[in-house]
Amino acid sequence: MTNTKAYAAFNTKDPLKPFDINRRESLDTDVAIDILFCGVCHSDIHIAHDDWGMTVYPVVPGHEIIGRVKAVGSQVKGFQVGDLVGVGCMVDSCRTCSACQQDLEQHCEQGMVMTYGSEDPHMPGHMTHGGYSTQIVVDQDFVLRVSEKLDTKAVAPLLCAGITTYSPLKQWNIKAGDKVGVIGLGGLGHMGVKFAAAMGAEVVMITTSPEKGNDAKRLGASAVLLSNDEAQMEAHAGSFDFLLNTIPVAHNMDPYVPLLKLGKTMSVVGASPVELHTMGMIFGRNVIAGSLIGGIKETQEMLDFCAEHNIVSDVEMINMQDINQAYERVMSNDVKYRFVIDMQSLKG
Amino acid sequence: MTNTKAYAAFNTKDPLKPFDINRRESLDTDVAIDILFCGVCHSDIHIAHDDWGMTVYPVVPGHEIIGRVKAVGSQVKGFQVGDLVGVGCMVDSCRTCSACQQDLEQHCEQGMVMTYGSEDPHMPGHMTHGGYSTQIVVDQDFVLRVSEKLDTKAVAPLLCAGITTYSPLKQWNIKAGDKVGVIGLGGLGHMGVKFAAAMGAEVVMITTSPEKGNDAKRLGASAVLLSNDEAQMEAHAGSFDFLLNTIPVAHNMDPYVPLLKLGKTMSVVGASPVELHTMGMIFGRNVIAGSLIGGIKETQEMLDFCAEHNIVSDVEMINMQDINQAYERVMSNDVKYRFVIDMQSLKG
Repeated sequence: MTNTKAYAAFNTKDPLKPFDINRRESLDTDVAIDILFCGVCHSDIHIAHDDWGMTVYPVVPGHEIIGRVKAVGSQVKGFQVGDLVGVGCMVDSCRTCSACQQDLEQHCEQGMVMTYGSEDPHMPGHMTHGGYSTQIVVDQDFVLRVSEKLDTKAVAPLLCAGITTYSPLKQWNIKAGDKVGVIGLGGLGHMGVKFAAAMGAEVVMITTSPEKGNDAKRLGASAVLLSNDEAQMEAHAGSFDFLLNTIPVAHNMDPYVPLLKLGKTMSVVGASPVELHTMGMIFGRNVIAGSLIGGIKETQEMLDFCAEHNIVSDVEMINMQDINQAYERVMSNDVKYRFVIDMQSLKG
Repeated sequence: MTNTKAYAAFNTKDPLKPFDINRRESLDTDVAIDILFCGVCHSDIHIAHDDWGMTVYPVVPGHEIIGRVKAVGSQVKGFQVGDLVGVGCMVDSCRTCSACQQDLEQHCEQGMVMTYGSEDPHMPGHMTHGGYSTQIVVDQDFVLRVSEKLDTKAVAPLLCAGITTYSPLKQWNIKAGDKVGVIGLGGLGHMGVKFAAAMGAEVVMITTSPEKGNDAKRLGASAVLLSNDEAQMEAHAGSFDFLLNTIPVAHNMDPYVPLLKLGKTMSVVGASPVELHTMGMIFGRNVIAGSLIGGIKETQEMLDFCAEHNIVSDVEMINMQDINQAYERVMSNDVKYRFVIDMQSLKG
């Protein structure tokens, strides 16, 4: 066991506080990682606050982890001490079920082992703990390679916000010339705009906030569509090849579906209750599809795509000690577009 | 003009009453049809009652029409006097738009010309009138060939209830061995069960009504799943290759989505407001898709499939004069499974 500094939530209401955890001794197939940066995902807050009714306290959040390899097990291939690596939302899965065989470990029939908040198969009776900590030990098959070319701290959010938006764009085969609408400009939406633009699509930012217009264009959108402006929505009706819906809260889907061309798809990545009348999708022959992060193979593909296209997240750096204020700001949507913790702040 | 007996709705509340309409003189490309039977679709009632806010009165409903050719225009090919034919929900479309070119005339960008309730392109200032009448004149490209092998009166509902359920099963490539759930056992659902069974699928009828169990099995279902029985629903979780949702009223979709296997689809054919939490479709990588009747080419394919597999609707015959009582019974879901009007009753 390796004693490790971390920050944890202890109940639904109190601020996160320092907490010492144990990381397992590296197995032959493990990579031990010195954590440099960890992104702050909205899911971290949901779990810290037990919004989904599944939290076991104390919990150390964080699943957008960037670090350097500090030790490798004897059977580890492809990673060496000093390598820049990433860990995302999962640290293990059964590897044998139909989903795992299809490189969709996030849908493992046994349940993926989440980076935090899952029962730890290597430490019976304990839960996994995430990246708000100085180090982590992860099986080599769930460690991602990260290019040295990119701004390392801004790579962290790619491990969740990045793959969550990249995966549906790939699944639905977005290609050069497609007209893609990204609904909602937050941590996920801003990555969706960057990816779709890099894939050659004509990207329209769909938002209720006119002030986000300039930012959307800087990120790669060619136009901004105000979803509460009926005339604008009517002008874009039936014109989109794909919609990426990143809205993280309850909303009405009915205004968006008619934006799609005949037979085209809106992919949804935010888990929330929605209002929907099926009339729109019936008369448009449209599809609404769910998408959950992405498998390990696709996450590596996404990171390689980012290195090739020089894509990172827009980030605001914080120290570990600032996490509670950061949570407040995330909840009031006051961040462009992702907080990243400089883990040096916890090591000093 | 040909004076023609019909039954029409004159306002939202009064019973349907006799009404004389004019059918156009046949054009060179027209088929004049002596109507034998017309099915009673729930849409007829919605339009008669102006539930969708689009009705122009008086309106003659009816879009499940079976009849015999009584005259053909000089350029008509493939139809002869005496032929048994059908007319469904559409009588024309622009024929040149992208949707029409894809044999999806129901999604014509100019709007399909509906069998009733559309502006009649051949009679400016008049609306089209449907099959609650003794004859109709239709362009040959929107007339379907009907096999003499089948029980003719029971073929009528295939023109709407049939194609509406056949089309999504084909679009989503249902094949022998697939496990298919049909949700809702009414006019549409009972056809969905018959089609899916004829395609070789293992069909499960999903309903809230235990008393429908025996009927569902007679129609071709191998099992009945009571959607309000949580233990039964849990036992079937993640096991379906496809769900055909025929529920015609407001409902909660959340119990159904988790029945699907990873990545699989629920097709929805009923236009209604629904409750939906996207969590289920995200964690199942599932798809919810809309489907609207079917194109003319596919409708002919469906009729040919029915002739090959000896499939017709289960019908209860009525006279034209009984239409108002029939509407009451449809609204209280008291019909197995489709009323069909014997048009002889209007000719006497």
